[in-house]
Amino acid sequence: MNRKMIFYMVGNIILLEAALLMLPTLVALSYHEMNGVFAFSLTIIISALVGFAMKFVFKPHNRVIYAREGFVIVTFAWLLLSLLGCLPFLISGEIPNFFDAFFETVSGFTTTGASILRDVESMSQGMLFWRSFTHWLGGMGVLVLIMAIIPSDSGRTIHIMRAEMAGPVIGKIVPRIKETARILYFLYFALTLIEFVFLLFGMPVFDAAVHALGTAGTGGFGIKADSIASYSPYVQWVITIFMVLFGVNFNLFYFLLLRKFKMVFTNRELWFYLSILLVSAGIITYSIYPIYNNFSDSVRHSCFQVASIVSTAGFSTADFNLWPDLAKGVIFILMFLGGCAGSTAGGLKLSRVIIMLKAIIKDVRHLLHPRSVAAVKFEGKTLDDSTLHGVTTYFALYIVLIAATFLILCFEPSFDLQSNLTASVTCCNNVGPGLGLVGPMEGFGGYSAFSKLVLTFAMLFGRLEIYPLLLAFYPRTWTKK
Amino acid sequence: MNRKMIFYMVGNIILLEAALLMLPTLVALSYHEMNGVFAFSLTIIISALVGFAMKFVFKPHNRVIYAREGFVIVTFAWLLLSLLGCLPFLISGEIPNFFDAFFETVSGFTTTGASILRDVESMSQGMLFWRSFTHWLGGMGVLVLIMAIIPSDSGRTIHIMRAEMAGPVIGKIVPRIKETARILYFLYFALTLIEFVFLLFGMPVFDAAVHALGTAGTGGFGIKADSIASYSPYVQWVITIFMVLFGVNFNLFYFLLLRKFKMVFTNRELWFYLSILLVSAGIITYSIYPIYNNFSDSVRHSCFQVASIVSTAGFSTADFNLWPDLAKGVIFILMFLGGCAGSTAGGLKLSRVIIMLKAIIKDVRHLLHPRSVAAVKFEGKTLDDSTLHGVTTYFALYIVLIAATFLILCFEPSFDLQSNLTASVTCCNNVGPGLGLVGPMEGFGGYSAFSKLVLTFAMLFGRLEIYPLLLAFYPRTWTKK
Repeated sequence: MNRKMIFYMVGNIILLEAALLMLPTLVALSYHEMNGVFAFSLTIIISALVGFAMKFVFKPHNRVIYAREGFVIVTFAWLLLSLLGCLPFLISGEIPNFFDAFFETVSGFTTTGASILRDVESMSQGMLFWRSFTHWLGGMGVLVLIMAIIPSDSGRTIHIMRAEMAGPVIGKIVPRIKETARILYFLYFALTLIEFVFLLFGMPVFDAAVHALGTAGTGGFGIKADSIASYSPYVQWVITIFMVLFGVNFNLFYFLLLRKFKMVFTNRELWFYLSILLVSAGIITYSIYPIYNNFSDSVRHSCFQVASIVSTAGFSTADFNLWPDLAKGVIFILMFLGGCAGSTAGGLKLSRVIIMLKAIIKDVRHLLHPRSVAAVKFEGKTLDDSTLHGVTTYFALYIVLIAATFLILCFEPSFDLQSNLTASVTCCNNVGPGLGLVGPMEGFGGYSAFSKLVLTFAMLFGRLEIYPLLLAFYPRTWTKK
Repeated sequence: MNRKMIFYMVGNIILLEAALLMLPTLVALSYHEMNGVFAFSLTIIISALVGFAMKFVFKPHNRVIYAREGFVIVTFAWLLLSLLGCLPFLISGEIPNFFDAFFETVSGFTTTGASILRDVESMSQGMLFWRSFTHWLGGMGVLVLIMAIIPSDSGRTIHIMRAEMAGPVIGKIVPRIKETARILYFLYFALTLIEFVFLLFGMPVFDAAVHALGTAGTGGFGIKADSIASYSPYVQWVITIFMVLFGVNFNLFYFLLLRKFKMVFTNRELWFYLSILLVSAGIITYSIYPIYNNFSDSVRHSCFQVASIVSTAGFSTADFNLWPDLAKGVIFILMFLGGCAGSTAGGLKLSRVIIMLKAIIKDVRHLLHPRSVAAVKFEGKTLDDSTLHGVTTYFALYIVLIAATFLILCFEPSFDLQSNLTASVTCCNNVGPGLGLVGPMEGFGGYSAFSKLVLTFAMLFGRLEIYPLLLAFYPRTWTKK
């Protein structure tokens, strides 16, 4: 285990966080929120000290890292980013409790969007901006960002990218990791900017910026008590469309730029994604029509909520807690799926769902013809057995994670089964809102400190896809080979 | 595909059903229920005609069958058994609706114990006996029974046993299938008889017989509106202990008879089973203590319900719908697990859970040491990759089945999310009661005919472990090689 390299890399990331914190400081300054400016400045100083210490005290001679170092770097980077990232909330006193502030920050970085705030509208602009900015940073990955911007002298950073980026298979767009990371962040930045411009036609600059950041990371933190409900239908449709876009594999946008249209239109996952969106929106429109008694409202609310849950953003324009059970049932199932691999969406990822279905079909065929060896193809490539089994085993682990989180939450005396179940599903999948007491117009503030910590880790497990955290706390990882 | 052999075998099973129907006829006769006697007699005649027709019209010359014939035989045998088995309810008019009678009969044979009856106490003794007798027949397997009693001239009946018996690996106790089937049924019969004798000390003969049959098959049909609640604590403890026993792999009882105690005490699944029972009973006792304010009552109710859910019997001594959410949460998770493989219990089976956990650990280790090849051992045997992956793929399919059942149920206008979710879980796992509107003191009578049919197939899919039904309706199964 190359421990020095772990410290060095994590130190770099903390320094990056210190630099990025300048942005909310400027926002706070522009709104004359001196309390916020002080909190951010102090956090920058602390982060800079921690980062410099880690980077220069443990200067590594050997820069080679393997998969295990990748997992450990990602885990500790995310933990430390969140621990330092919650300092502004604590120092300013806007979220005075540590477990609340940590929950809120992890919910931001993991792009979950679940909140413990009871009165989001009383928060200062600087803090609201920082909350949404964590979505944007966590969406594409903070470590991917660092690979894009700092000069890399290690050829092994693919291990970090693999550990941080979601999905069953990581596709490098171009042979060099650094270039891939740059292209991804360029596309990400450009799409965020386009959404921001579209939103400017329907809301103030601050609101547009915050919501563009939150949509891009498929996070879901809003700045109003009723999320997006009080904005105009125009704004709601813009956000719907961009939530759908940010749930698409970013490689496809790159192919579009290169005019490789065939690569986009033959993408199975994309078609699966669009079909799920359409079918779910259709069922929910049918289900909620009697409530709104108006076709266009029903379509808008249904499309918004479906896009929000499938992309795992978690914004809402309506309290779907009050919808009929058919709509709630569909939303509950959608919470598990997530968007496409290689997007900023959370959840299981649709390519995993497709591969899982293919593994099932393969096993059924194998029962019929035990001696046949049929190749399983996906997106033009043959999937070997280890990929198929990796996906089904991951799914088993993922269900175990949700069940374990749920069981621990059941010890909460004042939460019912539905709330606890959807809380664990929504946190493990980084969606945001659940049903019942954790519905879209409610929050996670009622849970005990212990349950909040459990849900915080559930969000981290979900965002990093379980294995990195599991390995970082597995003793054998730390012993020498 | 050896179609003649399929007809021949299914014909045999229908003839066996005709013969077995004599027993409830005698019960009806002894209670002077002439309506019941008529209904059973007519069913016997119809079954005998159908059975003889299938057996003698399609006399097979070639008796060789393969895995695919095994799956098809089991599927059609179970469907036809249930279709004919529901005739007494229809003819007597005690369950006048076809979908209700079919649901009830499949619930019997699959040992689910979910009921559409609104007033079970108004049923005649003959029908009540038949209901519980289907549990007993379905528990160990009707095809296993036929293998035990009719002269077998085919050496390939292992394919039928594999398709009907539950669990990831079928262990033959002795080399010959016929002998294995005989030993299993002997143990099954003996244990049922012992329970019957114990129950006689606390309830009338009829009640003791019905409950012994229902416990043995881990079915759960009772004869009182409040299930076992109105019986004495002695009866409740006897049933608790026998539910636990019938959830144990029957091979272990055989080892006990052979005095191979080491084989029993080193059985990992048994220890896992007992640990789950103990831990769950402990948590639930803690959770319900404030309700009963009495330690012995709390322990009794908690042990009974845990044994009932884990063994998938589904009897109840208390309306756990009214228990705190912690207890309900634990019960909800237990509904998925089921008992040991090779028992009459339904559910996922604990050996599958253990193998799944081992597959996860193997994958985690593989991430650390990509080139290592570690053997996974279970019950003293090395599990090859195809077994590990067969189990994780089965699990994925099983979750897809539950999710699909749940989504279809969501179209019911008058059932809430919790009821629909637990209805699909409890039927797919052959447990019996769910939560909410399908709780232990409620029933499935409120569902529409369509939803009842869906749940009926969910029970069949669960009992036969999905693949046989899937294959029987898969067109390729029927085409020539």
